[in-house]
Amino acid sequence: MTRTAVIGAGPCGLAQLHAFEQARLAGADIGEIVCFEKQSDWGGLWNYTWRTGLDERGDPVHGSMYRYLWSNGPKECLEFSDYTFDEHFGRPIPSFPPREVLYDYIVGRAKKSDVRQYIQFESPVRAVSFDGAAQTFEVTVQTWEPSGDSVLRTESFDHVIVATGHFSTPNVPEYPGFDRFPGRILHSHDFRDAAEFTGKDLLILGSSYSAEDIALQALKYGAASITVAYRTAAMGFDWPDGITEVPALRHLEGHTAHFTDGTSRDVDAVVLCTGYLHHFPFIDAELRLSTPNNLYPDGLYKGVAWTANPRLMYLGMQDQYYTFTMFDAQAFVARDLVLGRLPSPSPQEMAADVAAWRDRYARVDSIMEQIDFQTEYVRDLMTLTDYPSFDLDLVRQHFVEWEHDKDESITGYRDKSFASPCTGSVGPTPSTTWWDEPDDSLARFLQR
Amino acid sequence: MTRTAVIGAGPCGLAQLHAFEQARLAGADIGEIVCFEKQSDWGGLWNYTWRTGLDERGDPVHGSMYRYLWSNGPKECLEFSDYTFDEHFGRPIPSFPPREVLYDYIVGRAKKSDVRQYIQFESPVRAVSFDGAAQTFEVTVQTWEPSGDSVLRTESFDHVIVATGHFSTPNVPEYPGFDRFPGRILHSHDFRDAAEFTGKDLLILGSSYSAEDIALQALKYGAASITVAYRTAAMGFDWPDGITEVPALRHLEGHTAHFTDGTSRDVDAVVLCTGYLHHFPFIDAELRLSTPNNLYPDGLYKGVAWTANPRLMYLGMQDQYYTFTMFDAQAFVARDLVLGRLPSPSPQEMAADVAAWRDRYARVDSIMEQIDFQTEYVRDLMTLTDYPSFDLDLVRQHFVEWEHDKDESITGYRDKSFASPCTGSVGPTPSTTWWDEPDDSLARFLQR
Repeated sequence: MTRTAVIGAGPCGLAQLHAFEQARLAGADIGEIVCFEKQSDWGGLWNYTWRTGLDERGDPVHGSMYRYLWSNGPKECLEFSDYTFDEHFGRPIPSFPPREVLYDYIVGRAKKSDVRQYIQFESPVRAVSFDGAAQTFEVTVQTWEPSGDSVLRTESFDHVIVATGHFSTPNVPEYPGFDRFPGRILHSHDFRDAAEFTGKDLLILGSSYSAEDIALQALKYGAASITVAYRTAAMGFDWPDGITEVPALRHLEGHTAHFTDGTSRDVDAVVLCTGYLHHFPFIDAELRLSTPNNLYPDGLYKGVAWTANPRLMYLGMQDQYYTFTMFDAQAFVARDLVLGRLPSPSPQEMAADVAAWRDRYARVDSIMEQIDFQTEYVRDLMTLTDYPSFDLDLVRQHFVEWEHDKDESITGYRDKSFASPCTGSVGPTPSTTWWDEPDDSLARFLQR
Repeated sequence: MTRTAVIGAGPCGLAQLHAFEQARLAGADIGEIVCFEKQSDWGGLWNYTWRTGLDERGDPVHGSMYRYLWSNGPKECLEFSDYTFDEHFGRPIPSFPPREVLYDYIVGRAKKSDVRQYIQFESPVRAVSFDGAAQTFEVTVQTWEPSGDSVLRTESFDHVIVATGHFSTPNVPEYPGFDRFPGRILHSHDFRDAAEFTGKDLLILGSSYSAEDIALQALKYGAASITVAYRTAAMGFDWPDGITEVPALRHLEGHTAHFTDGTSRDVDAVVLCTGYLHHFPFIDAELRLSTPNNLYPDGLYKGVAWTANPRLMYLGMQDQYYTFTMFDAQAFVARDLVLGRLPSPSPQEMAADVAAWRDRYARVDSIMEQIDFQTEYVRDLMTLTDYPSFDLDLVRQHFVEWEHDKDESITGYRDKSFASPCTGSVGPTPSTTWWDEPDDSLARFLQR
């Protein structure tokens, strides 16, 4: 019997299990599927933890999720086409839900398709290698006895699907003066509760989603001021009073941050929103994806199959406009490669396909073109499998509108409503604005 | 040629290299010694880093050191008998130095004995196993090319000495309400700068050295209040205004901490001073020390040699009154076992010796008896090798006096002076008290 390991039970891993389960329910022989999850519950990043640094077993904490996080894109852009928000909540809900609502939604589909049966929790994978003679992957997993004693075991698999995400291992640069700064310096990976910074003057380094969202959130929960230093270009939003963008940090001198434009500012804490590393130390070097964060990492056929050994697959390793739906589309492709429903491509075919996509990606030079590029990538995936279709052009249009909305009002864009690409229903306008609503609970959200 | 691997270049690893180098300078054939160090410089914990959580390569940060840390015991109790403080600084200095001074001292001896030649920096050990057929240890080390590409290589060794310390992997318990607490929750491993807590109401969980020192330090640098919750017994010092001990935490409810005596208190941040795990995930299970923190871990002959395979040794794995001198005494024993100067004990001899020490330890039931126990342990080690003798009874007496001093004044005990067990010289009384001296630099310390 074919054995397939799925590593991780977050959005990607759950998408993969769901994809297999759909095939099984339709009568396919899917072989044996085993999902190994390091945490004690499913949901990946969306399974919020207060822990930072190392977990209760001395392992790096997976989560980078923080309290009061709200979706920064319309939920309609990540809606499962086979499990809509309307189906899950029984009625239309606003377009920008907080974490707990999205967690409930992801887990809702996983419960409906009953994929928990495939998951072994508290089972971190410690090693993945390929046995050329046996033509199998050797997967070493750690578990713990009730006594606390740890046990390592190694199992053979015909396929391995890596679904561990790439927003867990922080990229942490150093600047002169960090070692003498009298306050907290943290990476956004360790950011948990904006309330910690109430009344504080905050320095944020970065110019991508984390910088944008943590700046806004810190201000919303009472920070005195936020200075955001960028290396390449300012985000340039029409920031509310209290948030300022400045050029790159040169160094810290005590409390004082000095920037490359010669200005300076006293700050109480520094948040490094400097991104994440694709980090898979448990995977043998010759199987290990090594890439910067971009829309088409090299070495992955259809963005999924490891070209050097395509029975190894990676999900969700792209930089992301599309998220859950892209993971679904990838998971269906991965499943159909495993099941032989898609032909095994030759190395030449894979190389040519990857080269064509990377050529196309090299010509992308604006945000709008990035959106188009990833839309076409998802469209390509969707032609390959029976993943239920949805109005991809509407999603593309939502992304474009959303970018404009952000330019118009960075504090107000989360109050808009979008139409579902699956059902066409339009979320209601919430009764309180995102900016004025401190309560991010599911209960409160459903009342708004 | 005999090959010996030393893992770690902190106080224990440097003591080991120093011990070997002393033998080599005296004409011994010490074989090949290779020290693998994860960090980019030596000194272990004493090599302060501002980083927390994961380092620049996604590895757990080794350091638990924080700014403004001063020795919490008299320096005379940790003085190298072959490299005195008087020799290093050229004159007597006060008895309680801050981190930078101790770092300078440790590194001073390492420079004098020129042991840097043995150390490979930025070389974390990823695996240690034993090849029964070849009777060698296989040590897998990771390094990085200038391009950033990582390389794993495996080398064979006749002996392995683990000197990685056991104050790096935090023991992090969870209490109800942690996931909803609106502020920072950190383990003392991630505590870096007390200035972060100026004006804050702090909750500290624990009743050992970290709790004691972080409570005092937080108050010294301006925290509004510190509540220390103990599980078993209060530390019971005559705390300055602003520090209160209470029974164990039951749960948090928002900002409010509820204790088992029914009292409650609003707090802004929580520091878990809940200790560390002996954590050696890179060592094969059958070679791996697994122990709670105590004065005589099971399975180590003379507290050093892994009884199941005594060519593997561990340094400094005990709970510690004695530190640098105990590491030295252990390192000399480890060296002489490697060099065959000490006879290889039979499994029966080792078992009997360990059992005798553990029996004796089981009867220890006070702090004074703990001090006596570890004094006798160090004395036993010192009878075995040519480690230069020092006045061990004086050190024991210092520890006893120091415990009394702390009971007398927890803020004042660091202003006392003690006589060197090596030179007899007595450190001068500093011109400012520890409590009133915010500057912990070496330069300032030498002026006081």
